[in-house]
Amino acid sequence: MAYLNDHYLKLKAGYLFPEIARRVKAFSEANPPAAKRLIRCGIGDVTEALPRAVIAALHQAVDEMGQRESFRGYGPEQGYEFLRAAIGKNDFRDRGLDVADDEIFVSDGSKCDCGNILDILGRQNKIAISDPVYPVYVDTNVMAGHTGAANEAGTYAGLVYLPGTPANGFMPDPPAEKVDVIYLCSPNNPTGATATREQLKGWVDYALENKSIILFDAAYEAYISEPAIPHSIYEVPGARECAIEFRSFSKNGGFTGLRCAFTVVPKSLQASTADGKFTALHPLWHRRMSTKFNGVSYPIQRGAEALYSPEGKKQVRELIHHYLGNAKVLLAGARAAELTVYGGVNAPYLWAQTPAGVTSWQAFDKILNEANVVITPGSGFGSQGEGYFRISAFNSRANAEEVARRLQTLHW
Amino acid sequence: MAYLNDHYLKLKAGYLFPEIARRVKAFSEANPPAAKRLIRCGIGDVTEALPRAVIAALHQAVDEMGQRESFRGYGPEQGYEFLRAAIGKNDFRDRGLDVADDEIFVSDGSKCDCGNILDILGRQNKIAISDPVYPVYVDTNVMAGHTGAANEAGTYAGLVYLPGTPANGFMPDPPAEKVDVIYLCSPNNPTGATATREQLKGWVDYALENKSIILFDAAYEAYISEPAIPHSIYEVPGARECAIEFRSFSKNGGFTGLRCAFTVVPKSLQASTADGKFTALHPLWHRRMSTKFNGVSYPIQRGAEALYSPEGKKQVRELIHHYLGNAKVLLAGARAAELTVYGGVNAPYLWAQTPAGVTSWQAFDKILNEANVVITPGSGFGSQGEGYFRISAFNSRANAEEVARRLQTLHW
Repeated sequence: MAYLNDHYLKLKAGYLFPEIARRVKAFSEANPPAAKRLIRCGIGDVTEALPRAVIAALHQAVDEMGQRESFRGYGPEQGYEFLRAAIGKNDFRDRGLDVADDEIFVSDGSKCDCGNILDILGRQNKIAISDPVYPVYVDTNVMAGHTGAANEAGTYAGLVYLPGTPANGFMPDPPAEKVDVIYLCSPNNPTGATATREQLKGWVDYALENKSIILFDAAYEAYISEPAIPHSIYEVPGARECAIEFRSFSKNGGFTGLRCAFTVVPKSLQASTADGKFTALHPLWHRRMSTKFNGVSYPIQRGAEALYSPEGKKQVRELIHHYLGNAKVLLAGARAAELTVYGGVNAPYLWAQTPAGVTSWQAFDKILNEANVVITPGSGFGSQGEGYFRISAFNSRANAEEVARRLQTLHW
Repeated sequence: MAYLNDHYLKLKAGYLFPEIARRVKAFSEANPPAAKRLIRCGIGDVTEALPRAVIAALHQAVDEMGQRESFRGYGPEQGYEFLRAAIGKNDFRDRGLDVADDEIFVSDGSKCDCGNILDILGRQNKIAISDPVYPVYVDTNVMAGHTGAANEAGTYAGLVYLPGTPANGFMPDPPAEKVDVIYLCSPNNPTGATATREQLKGWVDYALENKSIILFDAAYEAYISEPAIPHSIYEVPGARECAIEFRSFSKNGGFTGLRCAFTVVPKSLQASTADGKFTALHPLWHRRMSTKFNGVSYPIQRGAEALYSPEGKKQVRELIHHYLGNAKVLLAGARAAELTVYGGVNAPYLWAQTPAGVTSWQAFDKILNEANVVITPGSGFGSQGEGYFRISAFNSRANAEEVARRLQTLHW
């Protein structure tokens, strides 16, 4: 008799974004005229065309695949050397950070990596997660059996939730208790908050002292506009002994539809066996990628490489400039609408407080029905997200300006 | 203190193909002239250019991604409807098989799916694996903690191995004992054997009686040349209640470097909760894909769709015809060399017996050193593979002919 993984049955409702899609679809079918003026600021998906340098590289790689002499079959499961070298040089060594090419693992997405990383970690780890948080961190731990059941607020027993609040700038401090694995995301999804160097140092010191591992999600690194904010956790001494970093081409190069990301696993990072022997994690992740993955599509890796060419870099800067310009417009609009709002400076997300007495999903429905704008309800990111909603700046400038106007027409 | 997943430490040596690559690299560095005449018949990787229909579709999709109006970001995690519909129609419904589009999950590889499927299955399952076998089935079960330690032959405690031998045509019958999850691969990697309709019916009947699940790997389906051999397990009545099928575009369309595959999870397939309640697996796999995956690259999905166009189908037939022609040449050569050899008729692989007293790795080293041909040692596929080696027919015709000649020059 075949058994299923019971832990899946603990998962609450749908994954956040499919649930939003369901509500938007129902609304659109019921209100065709309003559906025509719908503006989507919900899911954090880019809207602008791929950089021209990427398009050119993709075409060239496709042509290579059409000729026997230049055709490429299976690539290295960890990524082609040309891409790992471009990443290592540009994202790390040119910035004075010690990351070797073979510590970089190219994948088809940070979402996948954030979930898959649990494969190599033990089941006895105590997991800490900031709240609000990217739902994938929580759900993949539920699936892996690292939690008990959820309560009505969607809080799972067995996880340590670290509240992100206005008081701590949505960037929680290390807890008093010992935890083994910590998810940190800076610039933060959903709040748009960033960790200062001092805050990251606090976390690295905590991890070194407790032999914990930090899973550092820097998918939005390219949006950091304030010079003092660290772009990588490896800017903090000691991080190579306690941190894995996730990066993505989704939000800088606009690769959400192309799929390419990477994860850094330093060779100096160790974890304990059940009987207390410390062992490097790098060979385990290498083995996982070799056994359960077959590398990223060759043309897509060439596309990612092109992001590091002089033209590619310039085109990425223009994209970031565009989206951060939208964030500025939205921030001004939300404040003119007398909403209390955070983020939007070092991140493409605004984190707005709902007016008193309004829940996140009530705000979602009201903004959808009355302003015909899709946002993301904060409660979808955890119980501390209740009373907030996220506005994505991924849009055309005209749409951002229109959303800024419409926010001001709402009567709460 | 962070713990690692101790089960990884049970894995023996490297994954097979990296180990082959290591030996080939060492040989090539030590023997530059011989390295120049090296012919690779090891890893089952295609060698011919992508079909022209695919190249055209890729270019068009890339151009779409370069224009704001036609740009696509995140796609559906389960695959675009255009591709699922093309698969459902062509691979199943046009062949009289009952598979709905939303039972098809598009992924970036069968290797990934074969490993990831364990995520939704319980840890209490008794797992049966044919031997020899595609190493990924075994290694992913080791990683998931479904086995004990390995013995010297690389056999893991806790797995039920089903020997494939010349006596059973390398296609084992159901065991006397009860098992919960069974891996079947037809056409088989590595032996090239295929399951007859009667054999598959025997397995489906066994699975229905024992409420087991069959994981049916049909990645080489396109190579079936004998009309009586089933192409899908769903040709057998009752399979929708007990089987998941894995398919790939790697070996028909030559997508090993592009990455696209799919898995069929019928809605009528159930498994048991820990407390004995039978529940559909489809929502679990849907949830896994939504949470831990972000869909296959859009241009690649357009490329896969093109395989179902009239030109695409014709070009795939030509590719298969080419590789099966190689297999025929190799089969004749191996037999002229007085090797006992199987497979090569409904599969791109030949499964050759080593001469008496010669181990698989000895045969590998001898063929590498003396014929400068890379094959795959059978022992890499399990203890029953000892005394065999696999020859891949993925090559140019000239290389296949040259390998057929060189096999006849070896003195064992």
